[in-house]
Amino acid sequence: MRTRVTELFGIEYPIFAFSHCRDVVAAVSRAGGMGVLGALHFTPEELELELAWIDEHVGGRPYGVDVVMPAKYEGADMGDAEELLAKLQGMIPAEHKRFLEDLLAEHGVEPPTDQAGKALLGWTDVTARPQVEVALKHPIALLANALGPPPADVVEQAHRQGVKVAGLASNARHARKQVDVGVDIIVAQGTEAGGHTGDVATMVLIPEVVDAVGEDTIVLAAGGIGRGRQMAAGLALGADGVWTGSIWLTVAEADTPERALPKLLNATSRDTVRSRAWTGKPARFLKTAWTDAWESENSPGYLPMPMQFMLIADALPRISRSGDGELVTFPVGQIVGSMNQIKPSAQVIYDLIDEYVEAITRLNTITDSD
Amino acid sequence: MRTRVTELFGIEYPIFAFSHCRDVVAAVSRAGGMGVLGALHFTPEELELELAWIDEHVGGRPYGVDVVMPAKYEGADMGDAEELLAKLQGMIPAEHKRFLEDLLAEHGVEPPTDQAGKALLGWTDVTARPQVEVALKHPIALLANALGPPPADVVEQAHRQGVKVAGLASNARHARKQVDVGVDIIVAQGTEAGGHTGDVATMVLIPEVVDAVGEDTIVLAAGGIGRGRQMAAGLALGADGVWTGSIWLTVAEADTPERALPKLLNATSRDTVRSRAWTGKPARFLKTAWTDAWESENSPGYLPMPMQFMLIADALPRISRSGDGELVTFPVGQIVGSMNQIKPSAQVIYDLIDEYVEAITRLNTITDSD
Repeated sequence: MRTRVTELFGIEYPIFAFSHCRDVVAAVSRAGGMGVLGALHFTPEELELELAWIDEHVGGRPYGVDVVMPAKYEGADMGDAEELLAKLQGMIPAEHKRFLEDLLAEHGVEPPTDQAGKALLGWTDVTARPQVEVALKHPIALLANALGPPPADVVEQAHRQGVKVAGLASNARHARKQVDVGVDIIVAQGTEAGGHTGDVATMVLIPEVVDAVGEDTIVLAAGGIGRGRQMAAGLALGADGVWTGSIWLTVAEADTPERALPKLLNATSRDTVRSRAWTGKPARFLKTAWTDAWESENSPGYLPMPMQFMLIADALPRISRSGDGELVTFPVGQIVGSMNQIKPSAQVIYDLIDEYVEAITRLNTITDSD
Repeated sequence: MRTRVTELFGIEYPIFAFSHCRDVVAAVSRAGGMGVLGALHFTPEELELELAWIDEHVGGRPYGVDVVMPAKYEGADMGDAEELLAKLQGMIPAEHKRFLEDLLAEHGVEPPTDQAGKALLGWTDVTARPQVEVALKHPIALLANALGPPPADVVEQAHRQGVKVAGLASNARHARKQVDVGVDIIVAQGTEAGGHTGDVATMVLIPEVVDAVGEDTIVLAAGGIGRGRQMAAGLALGADGVWTGSIWLTVAEADTPERALPKLLNATSRDTVRSRAWTGKPARFLKTAWTDAWESENSPGYLPMPMQFMLIADALPRISRSGDGELVTFPVGQIVGSMNQIKPSAQVIYDLIDEYVEAITRLNTITDSD
């Protein structure tokens, strides 16, 4: 296959795979796509180890790193990371803490510990920057930002090192803004996607973004793409490639939490919900007792980013390892309904391509008939 | 173009156009697609006149009729139409009437009249049946049902007359149910569609439905389809054709209300919302002061179908002709962001095909490169 992104990166297939798992990133790149490591949950030191591992196992193929630098967040003017953390911790209302601990107790989750140190990781400019510094010391081909346009100086620094910059956008206006600060690739992500997502569906969003950014900017289609027919649809809509995320949660190499995995494998496309209950901004998750509780009459409402995640960060591992399991949720898109089987990452790539070729062949039969 | 639906109906393009306007229906069928008249707002006598007009103006090309027979509604066991109407009217709470009149007064809408006679039109089995009787006296090619599977005897009657039956479905389980009662064509409609719609996006829904109903059932892709790239995407996802609705609201032949038209032309894809504020079931509309008010803190909540529409039916024409215009809304999908120009219906069909051919040509360039 040949599009502007296969040419740009020297990859075989225009398939980008977002994953927090280094094994998946390396496996996808080796299979001819491009793996992109989500850096959010790593300290700079951890990220350094992950990327060194990928460098060793990716067989010289290109890969990328994805960070989260939100354009707007509470505490943007509050100084360095430690100072910011302390100030924001103090701003979390007692009512929210009480609601959370009552909810956890109701579901038999073990009591809190004292360490909430990782709570702020990567969710702000000051915490994401060290990640960018680490990433740019490795031979990455792509630096992606998951929320809004990355700061202009980060774009410049990446470009100086020959690293392309991608930005996620959920509407045409945001996409244009990113192009203005020098972003090379827009990942246009529809509402059906997992994680942070807007409300416009992929079918409507992609042509709008492609037309809005003009011919010089590359657009990847994201949201609802996990099979070859969807890849064909994404390219038909005008994209130069597809950006996938959810489908890598159930591959053989994935390190998806033990209690979340069966829920993902059994869920239908109707079992997700867009909720602020994780990060404070709307993100699509498995609909479970967790998302239900935050929408219930007793809910104190959501805190703004990054405070909602700071509030719950310590609870997440406790929910993962104790209690009745009903609160376990996970960021995932509507494609979860098609994720019913554990396959090696390379097999997922080959299946995508097989079904893609079938879809194109069928389209030509439809079109060439007269 | 050749798919199973172009073969089945002897049409040139696999494009179905839902419209409440007879002029649009006839124009689309004459241009090589298939117009489908929404019967909901017509009395049986009015519907008879509309269909007679279409018969005269469609140039012998096939067309269809769309009715609304919800599988479940309040009062399903309450006898004939008149009896049902009286009983349901009595069940509307005073609180809801008060909220509505206060809202209208706030926006300068003229006071109520005494006639609410058309309030129940077509929303129930007993009121939709006479529409079906009228429709089947005309040379229609397709009878579509907009909510759930049509009653088995209606399917049989249509089949006896050689009329194909289509049913709208917003998830794979409902689609299979419709196939079980003999529906020939599933219109799989994603959440981005206008009017009644589920929460799964078209990108995810179409492959799921295609796989769920099996090879013998024809699937049309609906939701977010208004341009040639989207038509190509719908067919790439496995559909045999596309079902469009919103885009016919802004064609030259449309009888869209005068105060709604500029709002539709100016709206972006982010200006719609799924709301129960019109019919009691979730339907996508332009987001205006109307949908906002029913979601506000003062809202008494929504009544079940068909009572919500009975409550508001008399207010709709008043909102259309008086007041500050802020309450004016209209059922429309996210594709409204692309509806910025008034064009003749035939031109819309030709533009769809032109862009479709471009998209297929580009896909082949991408795919044939190695």
